[in-house]
Amino acid sequence: MSKESVKKLKARLSKTIFGVSTPAGKAFDITLIILIILSILMVILESVPRYHKNYGDYFSVIEWIITIFFTIEYILRIWIVERPSRYIFSFYGIIDFLSILPSFLGLFIRGTQGLAVIRGVRLLRIFRILKLNRYTSAGTFLIRALKASTSKISVFLFAVIMAVIIIGTLMYLIEGPESGFTDIPTGIYWAVVTLTTVGYGDISPLTPIGQFLASVVMILGYGIIAVPTGIVTSEITMKKLNPSEGDIDSSEFEGRECPECGTVGHRKSAAYCYNCGGHLQDHLLD
Amino acid sequence: MSKESVKKLKARLSKTIFGVSTPAGKAFDITLIILIILSILMVILESVPRYHKNYGDYFSVIEWIITIFFTIEYILRIWIVERPSRYIFSFYGIIDFLSILPSFLGLFIRGTQGLAVIRGVRLLRIFRILKLNRYTSAGTFLIRALKASTSKISVFLFAVIMAVIIIGTLMYLIEGPESGFTDIPTGIYWAVVTLTTVGYGDISPLTPIGQFLASVVMILGYGIIAVPTGIVTSEITMKKLNPSEGDIDSSEFEGRECPECGTVGHRKSAAYCYNCGGHLQDHLLD
Amino acid sequence: MSKESVKKLKARLSKTIFGVSTPAGKAFDITLIILIILSILMVILESVPRYHKNYGDYFSVIEWIITIFFTIEYILRIWIVERPSRYIFSFYGIIDFLSILPSFLGLFIRGTQGLAVIRGVRLLRIFRILKLNRYTSAGTFLIRALKASTSKISVFLFAVIMAVIIIGTLMYLIEGPESGFTDIPTGIYWAVVTLTTVGYGDISPLTPIGQFLASVVMILGYGIIAVPTGIVTSEITMKKLNPSEGDIDSSEFEGRECPECGTVGHRKSAAYCYNCGGHLQDHLLD
Amino acid sequence: MSKESVKKLKARLSKTIFGVSTPAGKAFDITLIILIILSILMVILESVPRYHKNYGDYFSVIEWIITIFFTIEYILRIWIVERPSRYIFSFYGIIDFLSILPSFLGLFIRGTQGLAVIRGVRLLRIFRILKLNRYTSAGTFLIRALKASTSKISVFLFAVIMAVIIIGTLMYLIEGPESGFTDIPTGIYWAVVTLTTVGYGDISPLTPIGQFLASVVMILGYGIIAVPTGIVTSEITMKKLNPSEGDIDSSEFEGRECPECGTVGHRKSAAYCYNCGGHLQDHLLD
Repeated sequence: MSKESVKKLKARLSKTIFGVSTPAGKAFDITLIILIILSILMVILESVPRYHKNYGDYFSVIEWIITIFFTIEYILRIWIVERPSRYIFSFYGIIDFLSILPSFLGLFIRGTQGLAVIRGVRLLRIFRILKLNRYTSAGTFLIRALKASTSKISVFLFAVIMAVIIIGTLMYLIEGPESGFTDIPTGIYWAVVTLTTVGYGDISPLTPIGQFLASVVMILGYGIIAVPTGIVTSEITMKKLNPSEGDIDSSEFEGRECPECGTVGHRKSAAYCYNCGGHLQDHLLD
Repeated sequence: MSKESVKKLKARLSKTIFGVSTPAGKAFDITLIILIILSILMVILESVPRYHKNYGDYFSVIEWIITIFFTIEYILRIWIVERPSRYIFSFYGIIDFLSILPSFLGLFIRGTQGLAVIRGVRLLRIFRILKLNRYTSAGTFLIRALKASTSKISVFLFAVIMAVIIIGTLMYLIEGPESGFTDIPTGIYWAVVTLTTVGYGDISPLTPIGQFLASVVMILGYGIIAVPTGIVTSEITMKKLNPSEGDIDSSEFEGRECPECGTVGHRKSAAYCYNCGGHLQDHLLD
Repeated sequence: MSKESVKKLKARLSKTIFGVSTPAGKAFDITLIILIILSILMVILESVPRYHKNYGDYFSVIEWIITIFFTIEYILRIWIVERPSRYIFSFYGIIDFLSILPSFLGLFIRGTQGLAVIRGVRLLRIFRILKLNRYTSAGTFLIRALKASTSKISVFLFAVIMAVIIIGTLMYLIEGPESGFTDIPTGIYWAVVTLTTVGYGDISPLTPIGQFLASVVMILGYGIIAVPTGIVTSEITMKKLNPSEGDIDSSEFEGRECPECGTVGHRKSAAYCYNCGGHLQDHLLD
Repeated sequence: MSKESVKKLKARLSKTIFGVSTPAGKAFDITLIILIILSILMVILESVPRYHKNYGDYFSVIEWIITIFFTIEYILRIWIVERPSRYIFSFYGIIDFLSILPSFLGLFIRGTQGLAVIRGVRLLRIFRILKLNRYTSAGTFLIRALKASTSKISVFLFAVIMAVIIIGTLMYLIEGPESGFTDIPTGIYWAVVTLTTVGYGDISPLTPIGQFLASVVMILGYGIIAVPTGIVTSEITMKKLNPSEGDIDSSEFEGRECPECGTVGHRKSAAYCYNCGGHLQDHLLD
């Protein structure tokens, strides 16, 4: 194969793997998403003893098909990018490696079924594929609103933790081990379960004074839930009324992914990754 | 009966069945609503063994009265509309058919009591009767606000599903089958029960580290609930501050129903259904 | 006693019982509130077998003191007002009567302890005493905001009821009696318990498909809670941004109570009750 | 030691203990926070029988190190301030004393392990150290928004308490002792558990009518939660739209603490405590 044809092949593969604008790129992305979801579903189902016993063999076959596909993809990525080492040690590079590792380890070492759970990191790969679109723009909006209220939410969380420690200790002193409040950590656990209105009922106060305190805590928790909601809501409303100048207009962005470090969110006109300086493929090849 | 008198009869029936502006039309609608609620109540009560045993006969009689009424209505609807096939295969046409089917099937086939539940589709008929009024206008407002925040809510749901899968898997690994976390699906089920603050208590962590993780999840869930609330609230507030131009002024609409496809929400001045082109009766007959 | 002195006495009593601006009126109101709370507390405590056995006699004595006080107050009210019949058959007149009735019935008839609970209506008397002040003005604001969103909340409630019926029926079909879903009403009860995130855990799904549906319901309920919050919040925010012209400026009102029908919220300058036309005492006697 | 050098030493210690702007002051604050958290953690862990048995000795040693550090700090504070009596009887002075008392009492008296919990007051010391910064400014904002809605929240709480009393009494009458509703306080406890959507499940209705009422209560509670959220959210949003003139610009404040009464939040330019008139150290020593 001539050097020229290799370069052309690389360019074509690049467009498929890193781009989203070509039909091939889209098909590749959708295949990946389906395989990831399938593979996550299998990790989940394999943990059920009954399914593992009856369908274990089918699971193995599908798992190997997925692993081989991911392995080929991993090798191609290394081959294509200009600086492979940068990709290999990037965040997504490590995830790509971890998502194929357990299957191969299982070949050589026995009793690595526990490692199967590591395959769960494949879930993270989904974020790379869900590049910049309507949804990530909405996601960005939400994260931005949450970030703007970080300090308020921290104060709130601090107050909740203090309250939970004080209430848990009080209930431990009032109820004691007979009611299931065997120690202060258990009391704090109960306080969290109650204040957040989860209410398992595995531990619940039995003495009248304990039930009274519990009632106060519940009504408190009822009111307290208003605080984070209020913070987030007002932040979102404000963001809508006065979109700050720095806000990204997501329509300007194309869903391209840097082949070297996996960063997404590059401007349409960008030719180089703003994170690592690698060549952005779609632009390069026009 | 002359052709003329048949046409007049059809017109009169049309006004009663499809219109809401005449006293007969209103009475017809109210009768229908009462019969539907009665029939739903009976499906519910019949499932209670005690009631089924004691009042089963009364239920049968009432059920047949309702079925006969609905059957007559169904036949009349077919007879009146210009293109019966279009009505029969429309959404509401199928619902009308399904709501009378189980009773007749019960005549010919034994052991079709399970089919009785199909009668529950009658619940859907209520939506046709609750045509455009103060309530559906409020409903439209709410649906509009929810739709405007679809992409944000999707992102939120996606994040919740991811979180639930990760938390469920972690708890399965930490707690194991002795605490009731028999497999990952059960762990995910527990995570949903906890994150949404439902907290049945059928499965709850027993190890200290599991209880600690559970506490973190609960406080997380407490904060997370703020996000959809914030999204919906700000959307409603914005909609109120700046009602968009495209918003329908509901007062302009009359609660007419297309006799052929069952669509509602036609403009006062409309003579033909905007959905299927069928004649709108009230207008036609003025 | 001369007619004149009787009239003067009536006027003085009027000021005490119906007014709030004099020290005597305030003292009277505070005494009443304390007695009502005491009497409610006693109804609550008497239901505890242990307290009833040990302190039953003390409770009786206190109960009779309160009853006698309320009886004197009731007789005075009848004596003072111009048209006693109007007071007697007014809302608060009936409550005043019901709150002393059980004690006297207990004298003549045996086994009327169940009636003691009727004394609970005394709780309602508290509303009359909490006349127009900072708190009722805040209460008015809240009620107004809730009323403005009645139609939206009705639609929401209707949707919730429909959802609960459908989900309850589905779970009854899926889980069946072995899991505790003995009939459709139980299924609906479970659906309410789950959708509102209460989650007792007395009934919970056991089959995988039931647990999956339950998870969907919970996440749904999680999102649904955003809707009423959004409605109320935006209504309160709008009310604050644009206080409508018709809104009462509560500072203009004095906490006077109509002696005949018990209505409160009269304008400072009012001499007659806007509800029944009775003389408002404070004004009359200046 | 000459009087002059004593004064200089006092001044230096003052800067370290009461100031935050010097490196020594910052290091002192961070050391204190770590010791407080460590000491709280130990109170919590000591309550677990297993840890107490295995690591009890280590806990004792750490506890004494912390106690000695706090004792030295306490003595220094008394020595440094101009009017020791004012510091000793101030809020933080008493807390400082209580946080070292239990360890010393344990030396002389046996069986004072119960007192160990008093060491929990050390948690309160953390508030003094978390002087005015980004977080307390956010905290101030939240407290301000909550205060502005006090009257509305009080009305809401009053309504919730009334509802809970009425519902609890009704359920006691409907369900009776067989379902666990042994008395009205238990009924009220159940009503709180249900209305706040906690739902332990330790008590739950068994009769159909009880389950129906419970369902109504739950849906009610579902709607009621919207009210405090609405109040707080709209208050926060309003505060953001129109920051009132009286609001403190927190950037103007320095995190200085009055050495005599422990008050924080003094203006940058302040030389005397606005609370007790004591000299503020940092300023004094420039």
